Amino acid sequence: MSLMIVGSMAFDALETPFGKVDRIIGGSATYAAWAASAFTEDISQVSIVGGDFPQDELDALKERGVDMEGVEIVKDGKSFFWSGRYHMDMNTRDTLVTELNVLEQFNPTLPDSYQDCEFLMLGNLVPAVQMSVINQLKKRPKLIIMDTMNFWMEVALEDLKKAIGMVDVLMVNDSEARQLSGEYSLVKAAAKIQAMGPKFLIIKKGEHGALLFHNKQVFFAPALPLEEVFDPTGAGDTFAGGFIGHIARTKDISFENMKTAIIVGSAMASFCVEKFGPNRMKELTEADIESRIDEFVELVNFDISIIS
Amino acid sequence: MSLMIVGSMAFDALETPFGKVDRIIGGSATYAAWAASAFTEDISQVSIVGGDFPQDELDALKERGVDMEGVEIVKDGKSFFWSGRYHMDMNTRDTLVTELNVLEQFNPTLPDSYQDCEFLMLGNLVPAVQMSVINQLKKRPKLIIMDTMNFWMEVALEDLKKAIGMVDVLMVNDSEARQLSGEYSLVKAAAKIQAMGPKFLIIKKGEHGALLFHNKQVFFAPALPLEEVFDPTGAGDTFAGGFIGHIARTKDISFENMKTAIIVGSAMASFCVEKFGPNRMKELTEADIESRIDEFVELVNFDISIIS
Repeated sequence: MSLMIVGSMAFDALETPFGKVDRIIGGSATYAAWAASAFTEDISQVSIVGGDFPQDELDALKERGVDMEGVEIVKDGKSFFWSGRYHMDMNTRDTLVTELNVLEQFNPTLPDSYQDCEFLMLGNLVPAVQMSVINQLKKRPKLIIMDTMNFWMEVALEDLKKAIGMVDVLMVNDSEARQLSGEYSLVKAAAKIQAMGPKFLIIKKGEHGALLFHNKQVFFAPALPLEEVFDPTGAGDTFAGGFIGHIARTKDISFENMKTAIIVGSAMASFCVEKFGPNRMKELTEADIESRIDEFVELVNFDISIIS
Repeated sequence: MSLMIVGSMAFDALETPFGKVDRIIGGSATYAAWAASAFTEDISQVSIVGGDFPQDELDALKERGVDMEGVEIVKDGKSFFWSGRYHMDMNTRDTLVTELNVLEQFNPTLPDSYQDCEFLMLGNLVPAVQMSVINQLKKRPKLIIMDTMNFWMEVALEDLKKAIGMVDVLMVNDSEARQLSGEYSLVKAAAKIQAMGPKFLIIKKGEHGALLFHNKQVFFAPALPLEEVFDPTGAGDTFAGGFIGHIARTKDISFENMKTAIIVGSAMASFCVEKFGPNRMKELTEADIESRIDEFVELVNFDISIIS
């Protein structure tokens, strides 16, 4: 298998200024797999769900080329559940309910067939589990990318730092980058975080785009200005899935190709926010994706030759 | 004269998390003239100052090619004074003191030699004065660009709307665009504001960059990620000055050239914030500016050919 995705598969209940849903499919690995499977069919999924998780949702991903052997189904358990309410700016939200359920006992054993993983995407999880997955791999993948969140900085900072030291690309949002580094300037924060291990750092800024840092180099991708952001849930995971999906398809881990991967991830995220849950991802055609990427080119493209 | 700049020339007292200054040179027309004069020597300034405004500051601009006939000096009056304190994020600030002083009686009569103005930059001022300047011109300039602020939306909305209806390019920040349009989505806000008259709308988002809207087209320019933002005062006016300076030099008012002008403005603004007041602008060489613009190219440039 070329690309391994590790993370949660879950139920979400969401409130945004535009609507409310009680119980829809969510989870970092769900969003990442939907996005990545638009670019590569060679994906292995590592997650845990309860007996309440719909089989047809697992089947839909299988049909996209996502192997489910690594997804543990706890028949008498309940899937992870998260409920949140977004503020008007859609960049901030309140968590209303977090029920870990089966995620509390998540301690994945990788199937043998997952050992030939070339690219590893570690979704936001307890850092000990992220490290356990890396340690189970006999051969180090070409690229390990890891997402995390402020919660682990508060309750498991030492473990988190160890995990960060083991990956190639760390992905956090701007406030997490500031918290992790103790620096307000994102340029200074990026230098400190790179010194912790990852050669590449992606800082997500929601509607304000994303930054990719590598040594002294920096690349910026905007978010597409949209008429309506309907539901930002999963946008970060979708971004990650599009990013690693492009990398897995091209098998090119250069900084130059990562720039393109950031644009691909941004394009996928811009679809994700148009509907509740991962629904928008399910209906996308190749032409939709190409046309959206063209919009990004138009958005940032300018003619510098006029400046003499 | 090719480019006319109308606005305040003033004193500022500033507090940022990095320092404090009691009384330095400021004003929208000061910053805009410093930035624009890096690109064209053919500038006419329209402003008002008190007898307390340093002659050498006026002379320094004259040496850059900025004509001062339109700057009224009220010998026994005091220059406009503004004092503010920035928050840690540098995007928000509290106004501590506003003393209008001579600005209260600002009612400029344009010198005859200013009649051949091709490009007009109206800095943030009471809308009645902005309209009076337009109305005094016998021949309409090729491009009129106008800055404003939320204050005028609260105390002079009808006049403001009339002024907006007379210009080609309106420049506001994101919260002002939302307030003026009553729309949260900047895409929807842009459509409503364009319906008020201006064919082009620039929405400034501080450290999050700037958007240029024209019909259904949109262009985005990031702000350069900086190690330190020392003082954001005047960054918007410097951006405006760089923008209109590039337009005045190239005499090209197409959407394509405006994109480049936005990048030029962003580059100038990125210098402005590195020091208190307009000081950084005074020491810039052509090579500094070219190298900074190259950084913007690097920042957003990606290879889309890899996506097949």
